[in-house]
Amino acid sequence: MAKKEEIVFKSRQKYDYKADEKIFYDTIIIGAGVVGLAAGMYAGRLGLKTLIIGELKGGTITLTNGVENYPGFVSLSGQKLAELMENHVKDYDIDLLNAKVESIEKKDENNSPLYIVKTAGKKFKTKTIIFATGTKIKRLGVKGEKEFENKGVSYCALCDGPLFKNKIVGVVGGSDSAVKEALLLTEYAKKVFIIYRGEQIHPEQINLARAEEKIKWGKIEVINHTNVLEIKGAKFIKSVVLDKAYKGKRELLLEGLFVEIGHLPLSELAVPISVRTNEKGEIVINRNSETNIEGIFAAGDVVDTEFKQAITGVGEGVTAVYHAYKFVRKSGL
Amino acid sequence: MAKKEEIVFKSRQKYDYKADEKIFYDTIIIGAGVVGLAAGMYAGRLGLKTLIIGELKGGTITLTNGVENYPGFVSLSGQKLAELMENHVKDYDIDLLNAKVESIEKKDENNSPLYIVKTAGKKFKTKTIIFATGTKIKRLGVKGEKEFENKGVSYCALCDGPLFKNKIVGVVGGSDSAVKEALLLTEYAKKVFIIYRGEQIHPEQINLARAEEKIKWGKIEVINHTNVLEIKGAKFIKSVVLDKAYKGKRELLLEGLFVEIGHLPLSELAVPISVRTNEKGEIVINRNSETNIEGIFAAGDVVDTEFKQAITGVGEGVTAVYHAYKFVRKSGL
Repeated sequence: MAKKEEIVFKSRQKYDYKADEKIFYDTIIIGAGVVGLAAGMYAGRLGLKTLIIGELKGGTITLTNGVENYPGFVSLSGQKLAELMENHVKDYDIDLLNAKVESIEKKDENNSPLYIVKTAGKKFKTKTIIFATGTKIKRLGVKGEKEFENKGVSYCALCDGPLFKNKIVGVVGGSDSAVKEALLLTEYAKKVFIIYRGEQIHPEQINLARAEEKIKWGKIEVINHTNVLEIKGAKFIKSVVLDKAYKGKRELLLEGLFVEIGHLPLSELAVPISVRTNEKGEIVINRNSETNIEGIFAAGDVVDTEFKQAITGVGEGVTAVYHAYKFVRKSGL
Repeated sequence: MAKKEEIVFKSRQKYDYKADEKIFYDTIIIGAGVVGLAAGMYAGRLGLKTLIIGELKGGTITLTNGVENYPGFVSLSGQKLAELMENHVKDYDIDLLNAKVESIEKKDENNSPLYIVKTAGKKFKTKTIIFATGTKIKRLGVKGEKEFENKGVSYCALCDGPLFKNKIVGVVGGSDSAVKEALLLTEYAKKVFIIYRGEQIHPEQINLARAEEKIKWGKIEVINHTNVLEIKGAKFIKSVVLDKAYKGKRELLLEGLFVEIGHLPLSELAVPISVRTNEKGEIVINRNSETNIEGIFAAGDVVDTEFKQAITGVGEGVTAVYHAYKFVRKSGL
């Protein structure tokens, strides 16, 4: 069953149209995370007829508790940053639709290419597309993971952390995100194990220092070089099976397991229109945020940038809008 | 005479050193504009021993009245944005020195290159450098320009606009910045002429709409296809000589002239250490904000990015820091 599609807000309709299906957008931005919203704001400034289509308003950053590295804000929640972005874009004359894009099709009209973007209930015409689709959570893919999802297995410490008060929990992963999850969980849990397959965890220096403090006090314990093979329990999870013994045991007793082993780029919609992706499935862009297909741009977590941050994604989104503008107007500012 | 150099703040000295000259920095960021400050914040997060050296705290954005396009802030002054950035970077363990870099020299020590960065009074050793030096104002280079500087000729409407209450002023230039200057001047001046050498002024759409409103009411008048040849006056400027007649006259009576014809990249310091610049003098970087020289990075208005905005420069700065970090640590996060 199709989810209800909600028009979050409409532009003040400087341009006249009868029905959504009739609008010929200059650009459709797919994704309403911070990158999509910031891009929408710039598109509005540049006078492009713009539609943002997104499922999760604010995007994955809303699952983050403490954002301390968006320059200009010492510290705020991901939810708050997303709200500020939405507030900012609403200052401009663009449309925002809360829906899922089902397909994109390329057409030719009077020898110039255009794209048909379809949601479950609507379809739209556009000259350019900006992919700001972000990523989805990567799962472990082990026995018990599905069975115990929401029964101790979680992918979001911010969402579910408070449920694990005084319990012993594990975090799978060794990245900055994984360590941040572990740090957040120490606010609730009695003890947090970090289980990492690699040589050693590798968060940002500042989070490493914080983790070391917690390790000193026995709140965090790191198990490197180790994989989770299975998740076991009854109603709720009770333990995980490791691929090598830790303190003499292959089974580690846990009441919660947070999986933070990375994200998968949401680039499937780009493939049918021949947009090039790399071996990780990320959309390949250049410094102008252009893909290999004229009129198609991408920015943020879905692209092949090595160091992906909210701020770098937002920068790429703004760059994408400028080059979409140039493409539509056939001239620069 | 050397200007007084002021240590704005010092890191909390987690690392021990006896004198500035003895510190071996991981990175020195040259420029304390929003790009340099944001880069410093990230460098602090990543645990790099960092020094920012800048002349103008906050950089050129502090000359801008209304910043409406830094995503997250609907509207704030350039001064305020710079303050927020400075506040943010001060949350981290880095050094900031208010001084002018005089020279950079490459050395080799134990077969690994390092750089000596000198100000008038100090010298520092560093493994990497991030150029966030920005730009300087471009002058017209016509007769009378120097003579009447601060006697009617200005390069900053925000700084000097209020001096021209009820006067007739001109703005030279046709870019978004030039039109923004003209719009700001309408708050004070009786009338603002925009004198532009090109075919037609080309601000962002939103500022074009604002200008058109002012044009309708006669507050702004645009003279396209025209150059200023000379600035005339006595104590203060009285008129400018145009290269073609406007409304039958080659001389336009003006009581103030604001020059906003662009900026020149401040890349001179990069040239002696063989950093590649393009025909405009901009430092050439790649998507990692790397220059052609290992260990040397650049970001913001000084680089060869086509669409230069505060937000895109900040993104480049953060990217530069990550790759400087990788270079110093020989590994990623």
